[in-house]
Amino acid sequence: MESSHLAPQPVIYLVEPFGGSIRRQSPNTPHVFWDDAAVTRGDGIFESILIHRGEAVNLEKHIERFRRSAAALDLPEPGAEHWAHATCEAVADFCRERDSSDGGAPEQAKCVWTMTRGRESTGVPTAWLTVREIDPQVLRQRAEGVKVATAPRGYTIGGQGQEVPWLAVGAKSLNYAASMAAQRWARGRGLDDVIYYDPATGHVLEATTASVVAVKAGRKLRTPPAGPGVLTGTTQQALFAAASERGWRCKARELTVADLLAAESVWLVSSVRLGVRVTQLDGAELGAPGNEEEIRALIGAALGLG
Amino acid sequence: MESSHLAPQPVIYLVEPFGGSIRRQSPNTPHVFWDDAAVTRGDGIFESILIHRGEAVNLEKHIERFRRSAAALDLPEPGAEHWAHATCEAVADFCRERDSSDGGAPEQAKCVWTMTRGRESTGVPTAWLTVREIDPQVLRQRAEGVKVATAPRGYTIGGQGQEVPWLAVGAKSLNYAASMAAQRWARGRGLDDVIYYDPATGHVLEATTASVVAVKAGRKLRTPPAGPGVLTGTTQQALFAAASERGWRCKARELTVADLLAAESVWLVSSVRLGVRVTQLDGAELGAPGNEEEIRALIGAALGLG
Repeated sequence: MESSHLAPQPVIYLVEPFGGSIRRQSPNTPHVFWDDAAVTRGDGIFESILIHRGEAVNLEKHIERFRRSAAALDLPEPGAEHWAHATCEAVADFCRERDSSDGGAPEQAKCVWTMTRGRESTGVPTAWLTVREIDPQVLRQRAEGVKVATAPRGYTIGGQGQEVPWLAVGAKSLNYAASMAAQRWARGRGLDDVIYYDPATGHVLEATTASVVAVKAGRKLRTPPAGPGVLTGTTQQALFAAASERGWRCKARELTVADLLAAESVWLVSSVRLGVRVTQLDGAELGAPGNEEEIRALIGAALGLG
Repeated sequence: MESSHLAPQPVIYLVEPFGGSIRRQSPNTPHVFWDDAAVTRGDGIFESILIHRGEAVNLEKHIERFRRSAAALDLPEPGAEHWAHATCEAVADFCRERDSSDGGAPEQAKCVWTMTRGRESTGVPTAWLTVREIDPQVLRQRAEGVKVATAPRGYTIGGQGQEVPWLAVGAKSLNYAASMAAQRWARGRGLDDVIYYDPATGHVLEATTASVVAVKAGRKLRTPPAGPGVLTGTTQQALFAAASERGWRCKARELTVADLLAAESVWLVSSVRLGVRVTQLDGAELGAPGNEEEIRALIGAALGLG
């Protein structure tokens, strides 16, 4: 029996990369070898997917981006049906097992897909997914918002007009150590996150693990255009589609930090955090807008959270 | 018994990060968990060390850099004696076990140290080292040299005057996927490697996994200064120290691609490849210099290869 002060264990499924079988993996047993490219080089891709009432949210956009990431890194094409099926199985296990536990199954959970270039000795990608509880910190950020500092990312992406195929721009790769370091840096200052900008242009890029969305007066949504330095956000895409249908004017446009400070509200938007409102930016308090609940409802509707 | 067409298995030791025990790990059993930061974020550091006749080569400089990498990533300080001891044990096992095999122990081997931020659930770094045969491709490159293309790295490091602590400049981190992709790109064109340069300045930086050293007339050695975009090279450092003692004039100086093309010879210098001469650069053949053997001897002497 699990002792109650330990975090409950995730459900893990190993996924045959080429559409073969899937099988349950014990979280108490390691499954990644010493010569896996994920371990030796951070060489792989991932997706984080919200599970809501037993269903994967915004699944199509995640599959699209996972396949785009694989193509960018020259990894084999992940089979959409195969990953969807594995996710279903894992979520069903998770819900069944948590249902029979003390607290019952939570309404939401987090699913992460990972595919690596695999073991040096086999050359076959290693792939698995996990389903687990949402981090309490994420729930707190949803409720209370986040305090954020803006900062240069520290590097400017682009070969200045020359082909740089190895950068895998647009791929959601495992090379996330700098993002994690930036989050630690923020926490060390009593903050929650960092929004990167390009010091050469003054343009806002993205947060460490989320898209930046500014709400402007007149029912307008703005987000920095995807490209080098700005990953396409699956949740931002869904939000803009749903908001446009409801009469909002939604555009990908360059934004400066001054634009963020002047906006009605600023949100970090991502799959599992959903929308968390920025309550403090570079020390300036950003008061709650009158339409805060409308924005939340819009994000919920965009993702079919009902 | 191992079948002879399979690569022999490495010797692996797990290393307690805080100076505790070490223990042998079977290469046939995975030891990295699903929630290890190396796997989820490429968040860790490594060193590749040449083993020559049972001894770790240039060990002090590797320890120095490993400790510097750990500090840059805010990881616990690796104990120098602890890692040196673990390396000794693993090398002794490797030599003893290979000695009793068909071919006997090779004169040289490759040792890799890895330390990750560890499991999310424990927060304790995961650390291990491997000792294995040197890749035949490396031996071929040592003998035949390498064909190289120059290219922009694709990103320019630096916050343009602003503090960017999360970049861990100078750390040898596991975020190496782009380097591997650049090597694949080169191999797809019948080449062996890429030398990066900064398109904004025209300055040569480094190769994907090696320092660049130019030999100029008048017994001069030049290498691009270490800094953002140029990792300090342990082998380059040792080479410059030994060459200086022998009357060579060695300096860290900015180099352009034109400087490389005009040099007597150009070398990629790293721990396991040692010095491999660039025989073709951007399609131009670089003929063998008269002092090729002297350079090789210099590298050997620098590393005490005898």
